Amino acid sequence: MTVPAVRTAPRALRTGLLALVEERLDGLLAEEHRRWSRVDTRGAVPVDDVAALVRAGGKRLRPSFCLTGYLAAGGDPGAGTVVDCAAALELVHVGALIHDDVLDAADTRRGAPAVHARRAADHAARGWHGEARRYGEGVAILAGDLADILADRLTADLPPHCRPLWNELLTEIVIGQHLDVAVAAEAVVDPDLSRWIAVCKSGRYSIHRPLALGAALAGRPDLAPVFEGYGEALGEAFQLRDDMIDAFGDGAVAGKPVGLDLEQHKMTLLLALAVRADDRVRALVECPVWDVPALRDRLDEIGIGHEMEERIGTLVARALEALEDSGLPAPWQEELTAMAYEVAYRGR
Amino acid sequence: MTVPAVRTAPRALRTGLLALVEERLDGLLAEEHRRWSRVDTRGAVPVDDVAALVRAGGKRLRPSFCLTGYLAAGGDPGAGTVVDCAAALELVHVGALIHDDVLDAADTRRGAPAVHARRAADHAARGWHGEARRYGEGVAILAGDLADILADRLTADLPPHCRPLWNELLTEIVIGQHLDVAVAAEAVVDPDLSRWIAVCKSGRYSIHRPLALGAALAGRPDLAPVFEGYGEALGEAFQLRDDMIDAFGDGAVAGKPVGLDLEQHKMTLLLALAVRADDRVRALVECPVWDVPALRDRLDEIGIGHEMEERIGTLVARALEALEDSGLPAPWQEELTAMAYEVAYRGR
Repeated sequence: MTVPAVRTAPRALRTGLLALVEERLDGLLAEEHRRWSRVDTRGAVPVDDVAALVRAGGKRLRPSFCLTGYLAAGGDPGAGTVVDCAAALELVHVGALIHDDVLDAADTRRGAPAVHARRAADHAARGWHGEARRYGEGVAILAGDLADILADRLTADLPPHCRPLWNELLTEIVIGQHLDVAVAAEAVVDPDLSRWIAVCKSGRYSIHRPLALGAALAGRPDLAPVFEGYGEALGEAFQLRDDMIDAFGDGAVAGKPVGLDLEQHKMTLLLALAVRADDRVRALVECPVWDVPALRDRLDEIGIGHEMEERIGTLVARALEALEDSGLPAPWQEELTAMAYEVAYRGR
Repeated sequence: MTVPAVRTAPRALRTGLLALVEERLDGLLAEEHRRWSRVDTRGAVPVDDVAALVRAGGKRLRPSFCLTGYLAAGGDPGAGTVVDCAAALELVHVGALIHDDVLDAADTRRGAPAVHARRAADHAARGWHGEARRYGEGVAILAGDLADILADRLTADLPPHCRPLWNELLTEIVIGQHLDVAVAAEAVVDPDLSRWIAVCKSGRYSIHRPLALGAALAGRPDLAPVFEGYGEALGEAFQLRDDMIDAFGDGAVAGKPVGLDLEQHKMTLLLALAVRADDRVRALVECPVWDVPALRDRLDEIGIGHEMEERIGTLVARALEALEDSGLPAPWQEELTAMAYEVAYRGR
């Protein structure tokens, strides 16, 4: 090994705990499968839908940040609560994805058909009663609910001082998601609101709260402001990268359909910033029906990609600044720096 | 007052605590409303949808059973945890109703438009972007999710020995509901499975678990078998009454559309029992498309109403038997007896 140990030790430690998170998820889902399939073969369907999405991979971003926050704050790698908490974060995320895919009518996820799409296709193929769409979406609603319930179960041992963080995270996902839906439906052009949604959904939910939760579990709630600074800036960068992949990227990298944001009149952060910068984009967005090819061309013309790359760079720098004077051990500062680049430059 | 005090004391005590449950719900929802409407006027929409359904009334069956289990078991009426737990049960129920109404395409609830129907109508009236149905259902999915999250928050102080009961209750709702949807779609004719679903959704979720949870909070987990016997028999009676109201009752009593079960090919417990009793009903139910008027006529002809009344009577008697030798104070046995009649004979 030529890589200095100081740089690999944190990641190896986290990877070890992440393997325990996978075991915890597998064990819980296998147990629930056994239990409900004894009632009836159909009883375990919601469990299986959750399990399929968990096993399809994904970046495990939230569990990774939770474990990182915990370990960086000096948490005992042998304690089990953080493993349960990280597993719960992944289940909450899977539940949110299942519901989001219904909300967005998105048919693929993690490279496979979304739950509602797969179940609706089953229904149609077997000629069951009722409407295939309603059946598929109904099964998906229940599967998402189940993921949340299983997450709830895994957080039973969360110490009281961590509970408010956990509750905030859950509530923010729902409110952020609702505002996202509302802004798209009402074609609201409000860059500040779009930025709030991005900070809420990506910054807080995906990065800041998981890190702060990990630190609180390690007995270091005082680290919350450090992780807030890091997480909110990096979250905005993460959201801009997501918007860029959706606007210009390809589905193979994303594991989900791209171009949906524009087609669904989503006032993404990228678009909100473009509206503020360019009157022609504003005019196109203010039309009752969006001319998506014209919009994409205009975004290209004004060099939005370049501008966003600059902005992402600034945000990453701001995230890293939050780590300075944090008192976190140097190897963990390096690891958090590496994670920032991975999050902000994924799919490139 | 001519009614002996011994019979009214338990109800008065419970009514007092139920008023605190209402205050707790009102306070929590008002606080969340204030908080999220500060972000944006649209931010509080999911909170308002939950609040509207909470305030529209309902029987408060689950909170009442929880408080009754607690008080009957000798719980301290001055402690707050049971109030939070009872409020959480109502929020879980409201969340389940919001999601169920999407699953069942039911347009009214508690005498008012269901959340998804009201929001879809708003969308259509205002000419917003996208599909009104998807928007309405999306908002309803998020509102149901929020209700569950707020319930989660209210159970933060639940003692560890109560947590498994709470988790069971939540999981059973989802699995029971999924099986209900699956049985309808696949036109499964299996009276045992239909009975399992009824016991799960009505017996356990609405009666047995809330009572047992209350008793456990009062430090009497040993009462669980008594409340299991009472709750599962009474739950089946409750479900049969629900099926009877849907098949023969009127919407004004139910506060929701009636006749939906047959139209949606729901293999209710009532219908499953009728299939077992009568070959003509079986033949009608085995047709790919149900002839609903013919089915209703045949159910009438074979006197299903009379048979179900007999069965309900037997179930109520079995529920009351579970109270004998329970060691519960006589006034609480009387109160539980009164509740059994109210549940089994509501809307009559």
